[in-house]
Amino acid sequence: MNYKIRAARKEDCKDIARMIMELAVFEKMPDQVNISVEELERDGFCPNPFFECLIAEMSDEHNSKCLTVVGYALYFFTYSTWKGPTVFLEDLYVMPEFRGNGVGKGLMSKVAKVAKEKRCVRLQLAVLDWNSPARDFYAAKGAQDLTDSEGWHFIRFDGLSLDNLVKEAPKD
Amino acid sequence: MNYKIRAARKEDCKDIARMIMELAVFEKMPDQVNISVEELERDGFCPNPFFECLIAEMSDEHNSKCLTVVGYALYFFTYSTWKGPTVFLEDLYVMPEFRGNGVGKGLMSKVAKVAKEKRCVRLQLAVLDWNSPARDFYAAKGAQDLTDSEGWHFIRFDGLSLDNLVKEAPKD
Repeated sequence: MNYKIRAARKEDCKDIARMIMELAVFEKMPDQVNISVEELERDGFCPNPFFECLIAEMSDEHNSKCLTVVGYALYFFTYSTWKGPTVFLEDLYVMPEFRGNGVGKGLMSKVAKVAKEKRCVRLQLAVLDWNSPARDFYAAKGAQDLTDSEGWHFIRFDGLSLDNLVKEAPKD
Repeated sequence: MNYKIRAARKEDCKDIARMIMELAVFEKMPDQVNISVEELERDGFCPNPFFECLIAEMSDEHNSKCLTVVGYALYFFTYSTWKGPTVFLEDLYVMPEFRGNGVGKGLMSKVAKVAKEKRCVRLQLAVLDWNSPARDFYAAKGAQDLTDSEGWHFIRFDGLSLDNLVKEAPKD
């Protein structure tokens, strides 16, 4: 089977939403998913989109015109006040039955290429501590684990804690 | 002393660059800073800026027209494929001699307000494990430490590891 990587289009959002859920199931947090196809369409396919996305497609061996969406890489641009523009890879996913064909590596390399084209000097992502296959893959590719090496922790405000912060905002 | 918070202007970049270095010295990584005033001007004050920034100013008690830049909060918008738009607070800094006046809390609350206005349901940030005053402050405000509670680690590709990824990218 051959695979091809291309920029996502608005009509891919149904497939993307499905794979977001599949990834969340793998990450053991499916209850946390609260996003609709319409929200993905609105947030990713507007003049200043919140994210960009690459799609991997496989062609059937008997019919090269028959394409199946088998994976995605969703990313956006962040900023380091020490180094400048950075790409953050939010999601990287390949459907289990299509793994072992280099699709994941291909998606990741394409995101790295986009990063370079946008003069980003870093590609960052978050990984769960128990996800050894992913952590080993990143380490083998020369990535640093900044939580282990420098002690960085992720902090999140949401729900009530975010509302409480807003209430304390000084008047304009 | 009174303080006021306002959106940063291009001409603030000299002050921002100075405070970025002061924050990096506090974080014990001043050698990592490699950003110029010109880069901040270009990346933050263009049509689709990589970041937004709030500035805190104090007025002199004897002369209310005499304003001093004493802190900043630099943030950008990211995206959760589970929850949607998110604000990421990259830097929050108040000069040591102006602390204890609520400036840090004011800056943080203003960023939370921006988050709500842009319909973000999360405000996230990264903190160093040894920075107990900051970690205690976030915990007291109800934030979650996702590295402790869910096991998320930060991974970074840069330099050679990023170049190697790019080299493996499949052809278009």
